[in-house]
Amino acid sequence: MRTQVAVVGAGPAGLLLAHLLRLEGVDAVVLESRQREHVLGRIRAGVLEHGTVELLREAGLGDRLDRVGLEHHGFSLRFDRADHRVPLTELTGRSITVYGQQEVVRDLVEAAESEPCFGVSDVVLHDVTSDRPSVGFTDADGREHVLRCDVIAGCDGFRGVSRSAIPASELTCLERVFPFAWLGILAKTAPAHHELIYAHHERGFALHSMRSAELTRLYLQVGPDERMEDWSDERVWDELALRLEVDGDFELVPGPLVDKGITMMRAFVAEPMRYGRLFLAGDAAHIVPPTGAKGLNLAVADVRLLSRALTAWLLHGREGDALSYSDTRLRGVWRAERFSSEMTAMLHRSADPFERRLSLARLRSVASSTAAATALAQDYVGASEDA
Amino acid sequence: MRTQVAVVGAGPAGLLLAHLLRLEGVDAVVLESRQREHVLGRIRAGVLEHGTVELLREAGLGDRLDRVGLEHHGFSLRFDRADHRVPLTELTGRSITVYGQQEVVRDLVEAAESEPCFGVSDVVLHDVTSDRPSVGFTDADGREHVLRCDVIAGCDGFRGVSRSAIPASELTCLERVFPFAWLGILAKTAPAHHELIYAHHERGFALHSMRSAELTRLYLQVGPDERMEDWSDERVWDELALRLEVDGDFELVPGPLVDKGITMMRAFVAEPMRYGRLFLAGDAAHIVPPTGAKGLNLAVADVRLLSRALTAWLLHGREGDALSYSDTRLRGVWRAERFSSEMTAMLHRSADPFERRLSLARLRSVASSTAAATALAQDYVGASEDA
Repeated sequence: MRTQVAVVGAGPAGLLLAHLLRLEGVDAVVLESRQREHVLGRIRAGVLEHGTVELLREAGLGDRLDRVGLEHHGFSLRFDRADHRVPLTELTGRSITVYGQQEVVRDLVEAAESEPCFGVSDVVLHDVTSDRPSVGFTDADGREHVLRCDVIAGCDGFRGVSRSAIPASELTCLERVFPFAWLGILAKTAPAHHELIYAHHERGFALHSMRSAELTRLYLQVGPDERMEDWSDERVWDELALRLEVDGDFELVPGPLVDKGITMMRAFVAEPMRYGRLFLAGDAAHIVPPTGAKGLNLAVADVRLLSRALTAWLLHGREGDALSYSDTRLRGVWRAERFSSEMTAMLHRSADPFERRLSLARLRSVASSTAAATALAQDYVGASEDA
Repeated sequence: MRTQVAVVGAGPAGLLLAHLLRLEGVDAVVLESRQREHVLGRIRAGVLEHGTVELLREAGLGDRLDRVGLEHHGFSLRFDRADHRVPLTELTGRSITVYGQQEVVRDLVEAAESEPCFGVSDVVLHDVTSDRPSVGFTDADGREHVLRCDVIAGCDGFRGVSRSAIPASELTCLERVFPFAWLGILAKTAPAHHELIYAHHERGFALHSMRSAELTRLYLQVGPDERMEDWSDERVWDELALRLEVDGDFELVPGPLVDKGITMMRAFVAEPMRYGRLFLAGDAAHIVPPTGAKGLNLAVADVRLLSRALTAWLLHGREGDALSYSDTRLRGVWRAERFSSEMTAMLHRSADPFERRLSLARLRSVASSTAAATALAQDYVGASEDA
């Protein structure tokens, strides 16, 4: 087997990279250890930055996104028993679009000219520092293969194998684990509000979001060691109502749950993002806490640059962008880590009373200073550098 | 002895409070445990917010301030081996004034119609929850007194006795100690730059400031347990040059030292700031790390409100502002704590490599987003709420 770019992982990063490369005439093969149904059914993020939406449209993936995606021009911050809207479009000229990650993945799988190899096992990266790297794997039928290639793209997520092909002596891993977790539900009920609500409450943070006019996504801050069995559906709904409500304006109508799970809050960055002929993209290289909704958008920004860099290199012999790929993306990654960490600190209830007062002071500053709200809005829509 | 307001402490908070009260016709007596020379010689902060300058002028204390104070319209951030100016006045319409705290204290002592009682000892606050409080003390000649009053103002700093008159069960003390300290020098040499320079350097933070055209104030981030004897004057100058220099544009000419000392970085807030007839103001109630230059300005904001509140109450029987004094001021105090903590985190070199990358990402965001720079400038000049 032979291809130009061996893409390890069929999440949004890997699928989009293969899609963008093929549009430019670069051959790519995608290997994925999970089964097709698992990949298509995985429920994750749902807030797309303006730039992410633009890229998907340019890549011919805008049809369903434009039909069912929900364009948002602001979101609410709730604290001190009041609602404060952050008018994103008014402040930045840009909007965000609510469109589930699993919808993006479905669009990509349906648009792909060749199906990813699902259900592969024993994936091993070989000779990544040579100019003839390869990926060994066993296919879903138990046959062993060696995929020879020019470049390997490691898009197999935080727990994937790609990153471990970089020797420990060459890799710096920076990590922060936050002292809380999110209990999330996806419920068949109409959203109680047309925009996202980030609530800072004395009982803990809560987030009201949605996937469509019939699907509501809700999160509660819980302890890092919280057990699912202690959270009956009824308790979850009651707690959400308490934390999200302001002056009786908010009525949450419980509905049947489609999904219920606990997410750890973790920040992680691997440096560098390139080693020889191996390029990391998406969660394989970095994790952000979900508070800023940056995870999927960072993965898209990685593969936007990586597809251009590999096209220039493999088709036209210009390696410049591939050489600076790691440094360029790490600047964007750390910008997102900073923003996600600030949003997390501002919105969650800390066990430390000093930190709790700082959180409230940060929220009040965003609510009272247009400049502070604009800086936050720029980060949120993905326009943190001035034009 | 009898007065309306017994002021404990002759730092800037206590002296300014007595001055403002007397202007309104309220009688005040100031008690101070240190000697006159010590109080007048103490070298501290030097950056006055616009509002602080306005208040001092309105109170008839603007003469020397307007003659020798240095008005600044911006400051520099140095990082990534480049200089980024934050144009304060362009961004906020306001300026800051460099004028040493000891100059403010000297102006206040010279303007006072009655001299503070310096060198008192055995200060004890009595009956602060009754409507007949008093302060017992021994004067500089060893005579014991009881000063009867309507109200006591505790302006005796972080280590003063006033705060301890509030029972522990009624007081919440919130504290944060930062893992570094500042080694500061005041030197007889012309400033190497006409504005303040905050440098984030891989060797640690450094600050270039000044007191006048002939006096330069310089600080170095050092370890919290650093010993003065390990820092020869020569080593201090060499280290400052390394951290502050960018592309050879900065020439620091060493001069004789007037002062040299190590300052701990601490944040502290006592809640509430009023207990019965005792009102706390300035460092007696709160400490900020010096990075945001907020300590003196917070003390001035406290006594601005307190003088109005006590005048309204003692002369006109309206207690409203005195009742809300603590809540109102604590909002401003926590705003300053937030800003000082953010500036501290952004500028210092942390031992944690994750935090170091966040600091750099914060600095880059201030340098690249006008909104982020404006939000910081508003906090810096003391205009963090929109007009």
